[in-house]
Amino acid sequence: MFSEKNAKLGVTFPKGFSAAGVKAGIKKSGNPDLAVIYTKTEAVVAGTFTQNQVAAAPVFASKKVVATGTAHAVVSNSGCANACTGAVGDADAKKTQEVAAAALGCDPLDVIVGSTGVIGVPLPMDKVEAGVKQAVSELDPDGSEKAANAIITTDTHTKSCSTTVNIGGKDVRFGAIAKGSGMIRPNMATMLCYITTDLAIDQKLLQEALSTVVETTFNMISIDGDMSTNDMVIVLANGEAGNAKVTEKSADYDKVVETLHAISEGMAERIAADGEGATKFLKIHVHGTKSFADAKTVGMAVANSPLVKTAFFGEDPNWGRVICAVGYAGVPMDPEKTVVSFGGIPVYAHGVGANADKEALAKAMAEHDIVIDIDLADGSEEATVFSCDFSYEYVKINGEYHT
Amino acid sequence: MFSEKNAKLGVTFPKGFSAAGVKAGIKKSGNPDLAVIYTKTEAVVAGTFTQNQVAAAPVFASKKVVATGTAHAVVSNSGCANACTGAVGDADAKKTQEVAAAALGCDPLDVIVGSTGVIGVPLPMDKVEAGVKQAVSELDPDGSEKAANAIITTDTHTKSCSTTVNIGGKDVRFGAIAKGSGMIRPNMATMLCYITTDLAIDQKLLQEALSTVVETTFNMISIDGDMSTNDMVIVLANGEAGNAKVTEKSADYDKVVETLHAISEGMAERIAADGEGATKFLKIHVHGTKSFADAKTVGMAVANSPLVKTAFFGEDPNWGRVICAVGYAGVPMDPEKTVVSFGGIPVYAHGVGANADKEALAKAMAEHDIVIDIDLADGSEEATVFSCDFSYEYVKINGEYHT
Repeated sequence: MFSEKNAKLGVTFPKGFSAAGVKAGIKKSGNPDLAVIYTKTEAVVAGTFTQNQVAAAPVFASKKVVATGTAHAVVSNSGCANACTGAVGDADAKKTQEVAAAALGCDPLDVIVGSTGVIGVPLPMDKVEAGVKQAVSELDPDGSEKAANAIITTDTHTKSCSTTVNIGGKDVRFGAIAKGSGMIRPNMATMLCYITTDLAIDQKLLQEALSTVVETTFNMISIDGDMSTNDMVIVLANGEAGNAKVTEKSADYDKVVETLHAISEGMAERIAADGEGATKFLKIHVHGTKSFADAKTVGMAVANSPLVKTAFFGEDPNWGRVICAVGYAGVPMDPEKTVVSFGGIPVYAHGVGANADKEALAKAMAEHDIVIDIDLADGSEEATVFSCDFSYEYVKINGEYHT
Repeated sequence: MFSEKNAKLGVTFPKGFSAAGVKAGIKKSGNPDLAVIYTKTEAVVAGTFTQNQVAAAPVFASKKVVATGTAHAVVSNSGCANACTGAVGDADAKKTQEVAAAALGCDPLDVIVGSTGVIGVPLPMDKVEAGVKQAVSELDPDGSEKAANAIITTDTHTKSCSTTVNIGGKDVRFGAIAKGSGMIRPNMATMLCYITTDLAIDQKLLQEALSTVVETTFNMISIDGDMSTNDMVIVLANGEAGNAKVTEKSADYDKVVETLHAISEGMAERIAADGEGATKFLKIHVHGTKSFADAKTVGMAVANSPLVKTAFFGEDPNWGRVICAVGYAGVPMDPEKTVVSFGGIPVYAHGVGANADKEALAKAMAEHDIVIDIDLADGSEEATVFSCDFSYEYVKINGEYHT
């Protein structure tokens, strides 16, 4: 459903949105590190946040914005997570909102703030303040890609998408940018994803749609099993499309959910595929379970197994490591009934290895995208977890990364 | 309490035990791969086994031996796990017992069998049979080190210990050998550990002592979060020390528990320190919790975090990754009350980084053994998890290991 041509238009594709990304000097590398997304028309806002008990200051500040129901802007920096920074961190998040609000002519409680980067270091507020002012002065109706580039850290590329959906006879536009890479096993949200739309919709419905969608998309990613302190997904809907406002669970609402789901799933897949050091994108489809939660538990055990991840890095069809992880996941299963396939080729069935064609299997393992299919044959529920392999590069990135 | 001088005496240190290790040709490398431990005097036997639902054939076979209460021998091979091998695997485990029993002159149900190695491949029974016969013919009252060498896989060294304890006025000897390295996050047991003693003790008491001890020792190791299909810890007690049989929970029983605990903890620490590719031994001490289970959950979350593991590999005092893992572990905690220390130096307190002396901290991070201390200040229970770091070598070992 996505227009590849318009992908880079991202958050500025919907009417009324502008964006900017600048080099504020927060990152030691000197790369862009501060983004602003803005809509002059007030937007209803929905958000989901990390469930880590050690949550960062911007998570608390942005929750307060979502609680008001409306917003005009997002300020998102990379290079510093503003997490474990105590009262100073809270004051800095608030100050960032105030500086942006003054520059934009809105209320501080209209400004979502998001941060990513090193934990335990305060924001360099002089740089942040100057960066916010510069970004506001550079807001551009084509500025999405610059913003997308300013929110990434160890990501190897930006993650943007956009789409148009007909809702109530009007063309409604959606766009999004996201960052991922490390410390990724979201719960309620992924690292950072900002979705904009010119849809007119009731705020509570938008929140409900987002909350539904993240469960089967962003919350299904695991790169390294580590849940960040800073995850958030935010949707801003400014109503400029002029559609009859979506106020109930109608066919239009279903379209909104469907669109948000497609955007979120697409972003989740891209985040997983671009995990730190990843050379493979693993889609772990678990089915035949008694519940979605059971299927997710099994999928996450497989996704988080370093032995499974390194086997796929080595392109070795080591199903023994997969069935081993299934066996310890904590969900009752019968080894005799369970079937495991790699790239559609059964590798384990009836308690033993299936005699897979070696050449076909080697070809499947050499692919970049690999589907691991696990059928527990014990129910009709299912779940898909998005993950990646584990390479030397992951150890290099995280062993050489210094605080 | 251990005599370093006698460590290599291992399982043949107690009276009446002999052992051997031979090259049966199961391993492609040609290294020793089959061990036999034997006591002519019947021993009471206790065991704990993997809780992985996908358990290997030797686990089922050995559980039956433990159920009889007595045993004479252990046959343990490396190079092949005999897991996910179906009815053939069960028959092969039984055949191994029969061949050993015939050579030793005991009953097949007196023979514990243990296996480690690749999953999904049947045992090469011609080699196993010849190997068992050769090992039996080479049984040696000083053969422990040969046996220890034949049960290891990617371990960089053998793991043996021995000790003498006065019980009921008699010198009672204990010895043990173990293997660890990869797929290590035991539950009820670790990879493989065989403990011998000439203690006279009631079988049920021995089982109770072992079950108690593994909870705080072997079950507290995590190298990679992967629970094997083949884990087992076995104790054989042949009574040759001539002590008055331990038949109740007396001071003597407490000494037995204490000794088994010391042996198990020592072996658990060595297994963690020799994890695949490990360059650091991490002892994660979690205290101030409401229960042992809570402390263990937090410790395991930290131990299994690839970001924590790679940070320690890089000798970076990245407490942000530790407190992040504590925050998502699933145990209620207050970031303001929690204190984290590395090597006795507080690095996180009151919700923010503690201003640790950088030089002292760098020195602590450069050590091979590092204690990560986490105080949740929310109770009086505690637990210690044994783990290691994550290096390029781990990825190399497991990415290049081919089925």
